[in-house]
Amino acid sequence: MHNPQLNKNGELQHLITLEGLPPVVITRILDTAASFVSVGDREVKKVPLMRGKSVFNLFFENSTRTRTTFEIASKRLSADVINLNISASSASKGESLLDTIDNLAAMHADMFVVRHAQSGAPYLIARHLTETRQDHVHVVNAGDGRHSHPTQGLLDMYTIRHYKKDFRNLTVAIVGDILHSRVARSDIHGLTTLGVPEVRVIGPRTLLPGGLEQMGVRVFNDMNEGLKGVDVIIMLRLQNERMNGALLPSAQEYFKSYGLTPERLALAKSDAIVMHPGPMNRGVEIDSAVADGAQAVILPQVTFGIAVRMAVMSILAGS
Amino acid sequence: MHNPQLNKNGELQHLITLEGLPPVVITRILDTAASFVSVGDREVKKVPLMRGKSVFNLFFENSTRTRTTFEIASKRLSADVINLNISASSASKGESLLDTIDNLAAMHADMFVVRHAQSGAPYLIARHLTETRQDHVHVVNAGDGRHSHPTQGLLDMYTIRHYKKDFRNLTVAIVGDILHSRVARSDIHGLTTLGVPEVRVIGPRTLLPGGLEQMGVRVFNDMNEGLKGVDVIIMLRLQNERMNGALLPSAQEYFKSYGLTPERLALAKSDAIVMHPGPMNRGVEIDSAVADGAQAVILPQVTFGIAVRMAVMSILAGS
Amino acid sequence: MHNPQLNKNGELQHLITLEGLPPVVITRILDTAASFVSVGDREVKKVPLMRGKSVFNLFFENSTRTRTTFEIASKRLSADVINLNISASSASKGESLLDTIDNLAAMHADMFVVRHAQSGAPYLIARHLTETRQDHVHVVNAGDGRHSHPTQGLLDMYTIRHYKKDFRNLTVAIVGDILHSRVARSDIHGLTTLGVPEVRVIGPRTLLPGGLEQMGVRVFNDMNEGLKGVDVIIMLRLQNERMNGALLPSAQEYFKSYGLTPERLALAKSDAIVMHPGPMNRGVEIDSAVADGAQAVILPQVTFGIAVRMAVMSILAGS
Repeated sequence: MHNPQLNKNGELQHLITLEGLPPVVITRILDTAASFVSVGDREVKKVPLMRGKSVFNLFFENSTRTRTTFEIASKRLSADVINLNISASSASKGESLLDTIDNLAAMHADMFVVRHAQSGAPYLIARHLTETRQDHVHVVNAGDGRHSHPTQGLLDMYTIRHYKKDFRNLTVAIVGDILHSRVARSDIHGLTTLGVPEVRVIGPRTLLPGGLEQMGVRVFNDMNEGLKGVDVIIMLRLQNERMNGALLPSAQEYFKSYGLTPERLALAKSDAIVMHPGPMNRGVEIDSAVADGAQAVILPQVTFGIAVRMAVMSILAGS
Repeated sequence: MHNPQLNKNGELQHLITLEGLPPVVITRILDTAASFVSVGDREVKKVPLMRGKSVFNLFFENSTRTRTTFEIASKRLSADVINLNISASSASKGESLLDTIDNLAAMHADMFVVRHAQSGAPYLIARHLTETRQDHVHVVNAGDGRHSHPTQGLLDMYTIRHYKKDFRNLTVAIVGDILHSRVARSDIHGLTTLGVPEVRVIGPRTLLPGGLEQMGVRVFNDMNEGLKGVDVIIMLRLQNERMNGALLPSAQEYFKSYGLTPERLALAKSDAIVMHPGPMNRGVEIDSAVADGAQAVILPQVTFGIAVRMAVMSILAGS
Repeated sequence: MHNPQLNKNGELQHLITLEGLPPVVITRILDTAASFVSVGDREVKKVPLMRGKSVFNLFFENSTRTRTTFEIASKRLSADVINLNISASSASKGESLLDTIDNLAAMHADMFVVRHAQSGAPYLIARHLTETRQDHVHVVNAGDGRHSHPTQGLLDMYTIRHYKKDFRNLTVAIVGDILHSRVARSDIHGLTTLGVPEVRVIGPRTLLPGGLEQMGVRVFNDMNEGLKGVDVIIMLRLQNERMNGALLPSAQEYFKSYGLTPERLALAKSDAIVMHPGPMNRGVEIDSAVADGAQAVILPQVTFGIAVRMAVMSILAGS
């Protein structure tokens, strides 16, 4: 079966992963997002592109922050939004995932925004919709397991393009818990697709998966070395549940080796930008002086994230 | 006190139960629903019939699926929807049900969609609103205890009419846990009111209530016998909590006696349709081959359910 | 730092507390609310004053009732509403309150309606937004700890003005658990600001805070004495968790001493009105005969509350 993300005409049918997505599709999303960035500043922040469309936020895993960004993006596109926290619903009544999906599709849904703790769930849903010819419903992956978080990856690409203009001469470092991070995976696919010549990942051996070199990245265990001369630093959130476990000694130890301090930031280029997907653990992976400093673009990432999600949704709804 | 469902002019004021509802009222709802079925296929799925109206989903018992269908129906009618999960709210602060109702009515509510674990709660609310002359608020029963689920009953009538055109020469079988099923009760009232000459109920003795014959139905304990020559089969969901209890030996045993298999389905007329209110327990009350087969109309039921709820709400709002 | 509620032009920038709010600002809110009271009776209950604006209900403490009133007010102003129950969200992921606020502001929020168990939280948020020049976001305090509940105070002022026309010759009694009541505090500030010559508080010694006289009120421990000749009685809700504790013997004992019965109500002026912020404990602080009696204006308070919140929000959005 062909890539279920693209329809026969090569247009975006679902957004599941940035892996294998053609650069022209990514660029079109970023260009469309640019037209929405200004919408947020308007007196009336709505456009009628999805008026009368029904967007279902299917969150099988709780994430208020991500759900909120999709809810805002939907409402600014004038769509109707239905929030479904599925763990508290039919799932507990023993209905299968695909029966739930068929039911919601039968309600004339136009889009499913899917968050799931299991890698592959959005793909499974998209494939099922294609196989059963329910082509009126589009799937957006809002984060699945350790696999992918494509809209976060796209908003990171948007942010880098906004500040650095051209991807083709950049060195980008991704720092932290690569092993458990769907954000890292999406960023790596986005950066390599868009032609970034050097992508570095920095982290302790216990938090780096195997096979990173095959993804086209350079691996560093020493943060000071890895940050030298980079244009962009993407810090990852250290999950609380990883700390004090088998993989890591303690938050304090982690900060000593991999926390982004002003001293370490000085090793990067002087105009390097600092990104973080949020929510931040201040004093664990990032020093407050950096988080609130002049090089941080963490809040602009949030603003761009709304525009990028509006772009993805409006492109899917129009296809 | 007269039937609180109808106002002095015989128009629908509340929808509490299908019992005693005149056929002309039911038929008007089904006809109105037919006009909304096509709305779901339109580019813009909204009609402005309830613009500026406030619909409160008062769910004293959790039901994401039913709440979702009413939320979608409301939004497609352009109403504003407020979801209230009351168990987590004032109920826990010791406020009485009718004080909560009076408070919400004072917020200029137009409609309460009420789901409650106790039979009679929506009736109590409707009666209170009539007695206190708060006639601007309409009540829709979204399922109360074992009593009634009138919008499910109506969408079942819509589905049968859609596929069979005329009620007056049909044999309809309802199969399963009749004892605990508000759907069965609403279906029986709907079918007998609309002139179905033979309504059968099929189930084990332990799951059949007394007095069924007085409701005008024929009772079968043997499924093979009951299905012979029927035009419509309505399968009921077997509640998980009933299994392995005093009333039933096990899910496997139940399936052996009352599961709808292709072999059993072959006993019905060759053009018989198979319905199920969802969510399905595949392999318990229904075989997957039947659920996904050509005679199943389970997903169309869901689609029609939105239109039927739009019809009920718009008729109430217009009265 | 100056009062963060008012901007440089003396206009309302945030609504945190009624303490120190100029009478002209309060009067403008009440006058604006009057224009919205009739909106609730219209066929289409919406005005487009906040179309395209994003209102975030940030409820760090659960309160379905208050959240509902703000949600309705927002929707009647045509705003988009995002409900965030923050305890279940980033707060649990260890993100700081102000990081959460900055993130939501970066989503081009226009208004935060904040409920928090800790006194001062909305002030902290408003001050932070002012300091970081995020002036496009307005804060409405929807109740913080024991400190303040300004929209409840304002709707109480609206109700009193509606029934009594002039504040300048009234005697108003507030009865109950003054110690833990943010409503009492807001009412006292509102009443004294608007020129009520005699504000009385009535309650057992254990439920009266120190320093009440400095707020300009007269203190009574004997309810019969305190109610003599008053024009307005504001009953407070007795929190369940206070009963049977160290501060109070029992609900029955409390009712005997401080419950508002018809006999006690007869001590007030014959045209005195009875108010209650809800939800009521019938038989604890108020007798049902009074709650449902001709002098009670408890449900009109609810109706006025929607209009007052619409007034506050539309004034903030316009500043």
